Amino acid sequence: MDAPTDQAPALVLGLDVGGTSTRALVATADGVRVGAGRAAGGNPTGLGPARAAAAQADAVGQALSGLDPAAVRYVVLGLAGGAALPSGEDMPAGEAFARVWERAGLSCPVEYQGDALIAFVAGTDRPEGSLLLSGTGAVAIAVKDRAMAARSDGHGWLLGDRGSGFWLGRQAVVAAMAELDGEGPPTVLTGLVIESLSLGGAVPGTESASVFPEGAAPVPASPASSASASPAGPIAAPIAARDLVTAVMSQPPPNLARLAPLLATACAAGDRVAEGIADRAAAYLAATLSAVRGPAAATPIVLAGSILTNPTPVAARVRTALAERWPDAVVTPALDGAAAAVWLALDRFGRPPSPAVRERLFSVSTAS
Amino acid sequence: MDAPTDQAPALVLGLDVGGTSTRALVATADGVRVGAGRAAGGNPTGLGPARAAAAQADAVGQALSGLDPAAVRYVVLGLAGGAALPSGEDMPAGEAFARVWERAGLSCPVEYQGDALIAFVAGTDRPEGSLLLSGTGAVAIAVKDRAMAARSDGHGWLLGDRGSGFWLGRQAVVAAMAELDGEGPPTVLTGLVIESLSLGGAVPGTESASVFPEGAAPVPASPASSASASPAGPIAAPIAARDLVTAVMSQPPPNLARLAPLLATACAAGDRVAEGIADRAAAYLAATLSAVRGPAAATPIVLAGSILTNPTPVAARVRTALAERWPDAVVTPALDGAAAAVWLALDRFGRPPSPAVRERLFSVSTAS
Repeated sequence: MDAPTDQAPALVLGLDVGGTSTRALVATADGVRVGAGRAAGGNPTGLGPARAAAAQADAVGQALSGLDPAAVRYVVLGLAGGAALPSGEDMPAGEAFARVWERAGLSCPVEYQGDALIAFVAGTDRPEGSLLLSGTGAVAIAVKDRAMAARSDGHGWLLGDRGSGFWLGRQAVVAAMAELDGEGPPTVLTGLVIESLSLGGAVPGTESASVFPEGAAPVPASPASSASASPAGPIAAPIAARDLVTAVMSQPPPNLARLAPLLATACAAGDRVAEGIADRAAAYLAATLSAVRGPAAATPIVLAGSILTNPTPVAARVRTALAERWPDAVVTPALDGAAAAVWLALDRFGRPPSPAVRERLFSVSTAS
Repeated sequence: MDAPTDQAPALVLGLDVGGTSTRALVATADGVRVGAGRAAGGNPTGLGPARAAAAQADAVGQALSGLDPAAVRYVVLGLAGGAALPSGEDMPAGEAFARVWERAGLSCPVEYQGDALIAFVAGTDRPEGSLLLSGTGAVAIAVKDRAMAARSDGHGWLLGDRGSGFWLGRQAVVAAMAELDGEGPPTVLTGLVIESLSLGGAVPGTESASVFPEGAAPVPASPASSASASPAGPIAAPIAARDLVTAVMSQPPPNLARLAPLLATACAAGDRVAEGIADRAAAYLAATLSAVRGPAAATPIVLAGSILTNPTPVAARVRTALAERWPDAVVTPALDGAAAAVWLALDRFGRPPSPAVRERLFSVSTAS
């Protein structure tokens, strides 16, 4: 640590802590990035305090490399909460985290924030508005004075998260099971789900699973061909709904969110079942947002999470629904969460950063 | 082991293996019970093969105490499957189980059956009919020649089991969360769920949680009183939906089935939300049965599982629905599963047991 200790410019540190990665960013008051770090997932929910703290220490250490930690005046840490988004004092694993700051040589205030507020700040510099997030989970919040004023859903995969990636993946599997059980209509999703779960055997509507070469993008059967129930020629052992259950239950339930992209593939093929699922997801998400946003609101709406920031069928439907309900609202996607944490730290530490500072901060994305 | 080894009467052994208990029963060809055992849960799904085999060995050892194991000519083991009901060869943990029989001195055939078929046999001596089960899980099967011919649902709590105890418990929590979030109607379920999850704090519509004395039966608030949103006087910290999420997520998801009895309490109080949940559960269960039973079928329908064999609101609705769809069908509850396993062993080993043998076998219930 050979950085200057006197007259060092004031710095702030922002962290975007998720279940699969932790990102840290250090910047000056002018929004110039001077350090960055990336480490493994750092969310204590699921990983436990020790692993979470280790990941955070790793990312912070990288970001502060060559810098004077005493120059850091404010830290904002955004934490993906899933079921419970912690904010302020309500912080689990607080002791383990406190040791991270201590060992890094930081003595400034540390503000913990839910990832929903960070995502809002990542989409707008306005102090008031709404955030709708659909990634692995789903949540909407109302923001006032750049703080969470109300929240809807965000209740986790078991009891909520309607319209989330988990919800979409689960619906895709349920639709495939219904077809395999002979209780639901044929759908392109069946072959896609079987392939994604790495199950061999015969896929309804195809001659065998071998039409999906390993490592290649799955070739969806057309709705017409998947309606033919009796494939000709020798086939592998048929896949049953219970095989899907076994494959899904062998993994942590949130992994179902990994199947969400199948909806886009199926919708692109004109699959009615997939389109119906996307319709329901969008309706759920619009209802979740409506619970925290008045019908006359004209403040910005920030969209966050992979389901809403990528060009997915659900995102398209949600945007249409929002344009109908709130025609005057600006709808923007959330950008880099670590940059947003830094931006919030600058705002909390001193004055609201200027548009130029904001542009500088967000101009180089550290998002993967 | 000082039992007679010559001219010992032929015996059969039946086992009813569940997730929380394992019961074994030994009987003569006349249906006379000569040995019984009870041990911990013996289902390898969840418990693992070693613990499952140990529980089965325990129950079998008790049941064979003082008897000659060489006299046992046939074994039927019914296994609660949850997601996947194993039958015949498709048996997990087969090796660990094989050692149980070997060490017990058994050398006769052992037939593994799903608990759904055992439950069917526990309700009727007919070789053909249907079984509808709603306990922790939910499944329907069609039976032909006393073997499973078709199955619907039984897909486990994450992907299926619609109308099961798990489903009911989850819906009760979701309804309570909706009220706490201000997004759903007031319901007696809210107070009941909070109390059942052992959460303190203020219950909507009551002055404080202390109206539910610890250890006493919860006192449901009337629908009218639970509609008043602002309790008078000093109250404990309000319970939020996220508190329910935290409490539920701290336990294995299937434990939600323990909350299913709250539906009966709430329905008895005339709660509209609970009645709506019971309606939906019954509709799901009737649909599950319809998937494996033709509209003109007149064979018996056996009802099994705690949700359908107790006088619950869901059972009443299901019976009404079945009487409408299949007015000519006899609807009977499943009785003792261990006795049914013995009955099936007698049937497989020799001839179909007479009604007198059946009555003798089932006359003393070993069910808890």
